[in-house]
Amino acid sequence: MNNSLKTSLYLALIHYPVVNKKSEVIASAVTNLDLHDISRAARTFGAKAFYVVTPLMDQQDICRNIIRHWVDGWGAKFNPDRKEALAMIRIRDSLDDVKREIAHLEGKAPKTVATGARVGSLGKSKEIRFDDLRRMLMAHQPWLLLFGTAWGLASSVTGESDHVLEPVTGPGNYNHLSVRSAAAVILDRLLGRPSDSKV
Amino acid sequence: MNNSLKTSLYLALIHYPVVNKKSEVIASAVTNLDLHDISRAARTFGAKAFYVVTPLMDQQDICRNIIRHWVDGWGAKFNPDRKEALAMIRIRDSLDDVKREIAHLEGKAPKTVATGARVGSLGKSKEIRFDDLRRMLMAHQPWLLLFGTAWGLASSVTGESDHVLEPVTGPGNYNHLSVRSAAAVILDRLLGRPSDSKV
Repeated sequence: MNNSLKTSLYLALIHYPVVNKKSEVIASAVTNLDLHDISRAARTFGAKAFYVVTPLMDQQDICRNIIRHWVDGWGAKFNPDRKEALAMIRIRDSLDDVKREIAHLEGKAPKTVATGARVGSLGKSKEIRFDDLRRMLMAHQPWLLLFGTAWGLASSVTGESDHVLEPVTGPGNYNHLSVRSAAAVILDRLLGRPSDSKV
Repeated sequence: MNNSLKTSLYLALIHYPVVNKKSEVIASAVTNLDLHDISRAARTFGAKAFYVVTPLMDQQDICRNIIRHWVDGWGAKFNPDRKEALAMIRIRDSLDDVKREIAHLEGKAPKTVATGARVGSLGKSKEIRFDDLRRMLMAHQPWLLLFGTAWGLASSVTGESDHVLEPVTGPGNYNHLSVRSAAAVILDRLLGRPSDSKV
């Protein structure tokens, strides 16, 4: 089943509000390879846009410089595939701005799905499985997947999201993937795989 | 089906021989986040070790410094989960050294599986599908997955490998994932998913 052509799936990488190791709410710095890896995965698996959310103007400037290099600058000629990926990035001040923009584009507010290695007490009641979300993506409805940087999304984000996706796990108890790896695996589970594969 | 506990799967990230944009054989530089992301995915999905292959001594030194920081240094106390992942890395001069070491450890030479976005003419005849490889991993046999840096594995590596894994694709023609993202998706397809999920 290949459902990506019928879905309106957006991604947002949140740099504020997220938590640090002590569970304090912080604004994290932007990581260059987050932009590259997640935009390439977004493009590969058919997401509609990749929002980078930070209220810090210097961090927004860093993002713009990176994107400019690959979309308009020398990098665009050197590697047109990379241009195609990074052109999917939109920098926004807040998650609310992202939701408003998608609602405007799609004519309907997006359903938000928080991701993370730990679902936590706030998320437990609205945890959703990959198989179920994959089916739900077929509905005529925009979806917004939320990824946290640093030690993960602040509980305020998880608390306000419509659903919380089950964590990506392997066979054991260790599930400390980078946000880049987690985003790729999640997109593959939701939108990927050859059309003749079973899910 | 959860087959990871019965498998002996090893990973190797090849920095030589790989190709550049012009398909010339080169030795690539090590990327810090390759070490972090792929070791974390290897640990999450239950691979037995993660070999970083480069003949360049200065690149080996860079690797050792990174690993030392996270396994023995300040990083080990700050983030014990990261220590557990990076402790899986073994730096070796060549793919032949890796194969010999695994044969010594396992009492049997590993079957090698080349990965890449383009299977190429050399690989077409021995292309293997995810579903088939997932089943084959159950056999009492060590396996070695080969990942290329830069523009991918040199044709000599693909030519000598036992199998070539089908590329990771999304719904469209674009499949330019980073090696970090591709490794995570491939490990998930081969070893991941909750035990009650269909594959």
